[in-house]
Amino acid sequence: MSLSLTILGCHSATPRVNAYPTSQYLEINNRHFLIDCGEGTQRQMRKYKVGFSKINHIFISHLHGDHFYGLVGLLSTYGILSREKDLHVYGPEGIKEVTLLQLKISQSHAKYKIIFHELTSNKSEIIFEDDHVSVKTIPLHHRVYTNGYLFEEKEKSKKLHIQNISNYKEIGKADYLNIKAGKDITLSTGEVILNDELTLPPKKPLRFAFCSDTIYKPDIVPIIKNVDLLYHETTFLADREDLAKKTKHSTSKQAAQIAKSANVGQLIVGHYSGRYKDISLFEDEAKEVFKNIKLANPGTIFKLQ
Amino acid sequence: MSLSLTILGCHSATPRVNAYPTSQYLEINNRHFLIDCGEGTQRQMRKYKVGFSKINHIFISHLHGDHFYGLVGLLSTYGILSREKDLHVYGPEGIKEVTLLQLKISQSHAKYKIIFHELTSNKSEIIFEDDHVSVKTIPLHHRVYTNGYLFEEKEKSKKLHIQNISNYKEIGKADYLNIKAGKDITLSTGEVILNDELTLPPKKPLRFAFCSDTIYKPDIVPIIKNVDLLYHETTFLADREDLAKKTKHSTSKQAAQIAKSANVGQLIVGHYSGRYKDISLFEDEAKEVFKNIKLANPGTIFKLQ
Repeated sequence: MSLSLTILGCHSATPRVNAYPTSQYLEINNRHFLIDCGEGTQRQMRKYKVGFSKINHIFISHLHGDHFYGLVGLLSTYGILSREKDLHVYGPEGIKEVTLLQLKISQSHAKYKIIFHELTSNKSEIIFEDDHVSVKTIPLHHRVYTNGYLFEEKEKSKKLHIQNISNYKEIGKADYLNIKAGKDITLSTGEVILNDELTLPPKKPLRFAFCSDTIYKPDIVPIIKNVDLLYHETTFLADREDLAKKTKHSTSKQAAQIAKSANVGQLIVGHYSGRYKDISLFEDEAKEVFKNIKLANPGTIFKLQ
Repeated sequence: MSLSLTILGCHSATPRVNAYPTSQYLEINNRHFLIDCGEGTQRQMRKYKVGFSKINHIFISHLHGDHFYGLVGLLSTYGILSREKDLHVYGPEGIKEVTLLQLKISQSHAKYKIIFHELTSNKSEIIFEDDHVSVKTIPLHHRVYTNGYLFEEKEKSKKLHIQNISNYKEIGKADYLNIKAGKDITLSTGEVILNDELTLPPKKPLRFAFCSDTIYKPDIVPIIKNVDLLYHETTFLADREDLAKKTKHSTSKQAAQIAKSANVGQLIVGHYSGRYKDISLFEDEAKEVFKNIKLANPGTIFKLQ
């Protein structure tokens, strides 16, 4: 089990020379996801060596330009790269119409199928699930309909305790599947060997919560409780809490308060307003409330084992 | 009179780390134009210090992604920058619908007015004109409806020949407007001083032709005859003339043939296919046909006086 999060872009509003709007590449339990896709995302993917073909699922938090204007270019590039695999796109209602119109007008004929999953619910719901990972929405509150996303590894089967198993010559490889499935083993003598003796507990599943632009929203805490990693967008420092409230963003302090209340392992903040020349202020401010905080920067990779 | 062309992007198909799709910033006779707007254009504008507020007219050659996917982001940024001046966008039919839908869905409320000029004609026509400059379409032939653009300075009034004028004490500043307008001056003695003696010819108006993706199309030669500067997209070298024809692009040799037939002052080629690692081959190939050829590169500025 492992999780690796690559920051592709983490600045707000408009692209600048060294400022790219929101986008992240998440590898979790051998699944590969793209989260948000501001203008320039595909350039950043190339820069940080993200394999285009690995991605089969793209999650868009909301339809402000700095979170999705790079999507159509990426989908068009997949056509040029002769992609054939289905691609799933999750995002607010309307994303299908606007994307398909752009692809139609630019005559970007693609062999591959784009499957849109348009979201409308204001309740947290599972929107993707396979045998490795599940993804759940985190309803946020911004100026337009917005969701964060919670990525969770599936609990794996128990691990074999080979040393203990070797104490019983009668137990062989034929029993391993039953042991992994949690079953006790009855020996020919009638003695029952309890499963707990024959197994080690599985590794704890990892969980990552992505919360984009949102007003300070403490009611998300139960959804993201105890996650290993939380990315929470901030935009402003506490001195502009009024502006944050008005534009439905959070301050760095508020992101830290969410992290503290939810008892998360680590907090990452990003989506810095261009008005702040020194982004280390975001770290300083958050640290007063929540110690384990890091700044998002393009190219930074956060890894958890 | 002066002309300055800044290459913002000049690569084909998909954005890469150091490859930006087509976009150019043209200053001509104190008018400021943006030509094509691939993804990443606004980042390149910031990098090369192009003043966003100077631009009032954007010309899009065709609706393939590598020529217009950066437009909506730029228009959205103008909203964030509180632009109030009208902005004119020229491009193929359909550009209005797709742009307005994107701005609507991303709720990019702007105070300024976007005036779309949708083009449908297959004949060269004047689409912009003021007292400084005129802009004419150059009908091209690509896989979708495409125009190049011809930018021409207006002929200025004659210049005063101050030294010759000073030979006639009777001629004063009150006569200057008449002299500039081409009139002869009659002295009190009845002697007529011909206008040619009192004036210098105006500087020759400069002309720039932008020809984007197109199949080799010699019938554009009469439209661009004798221009001072021609940008002609190429994509392929002559070894892939078959592919150029199939995908309705030109080779570097073909661009040079157009430049030679049209007797242009200087040729610039660009829109290099990603398959060529060494773009100097485009220069070598064109040079065999037309000597005064330069390669487009992001950040290169071509100036004419």
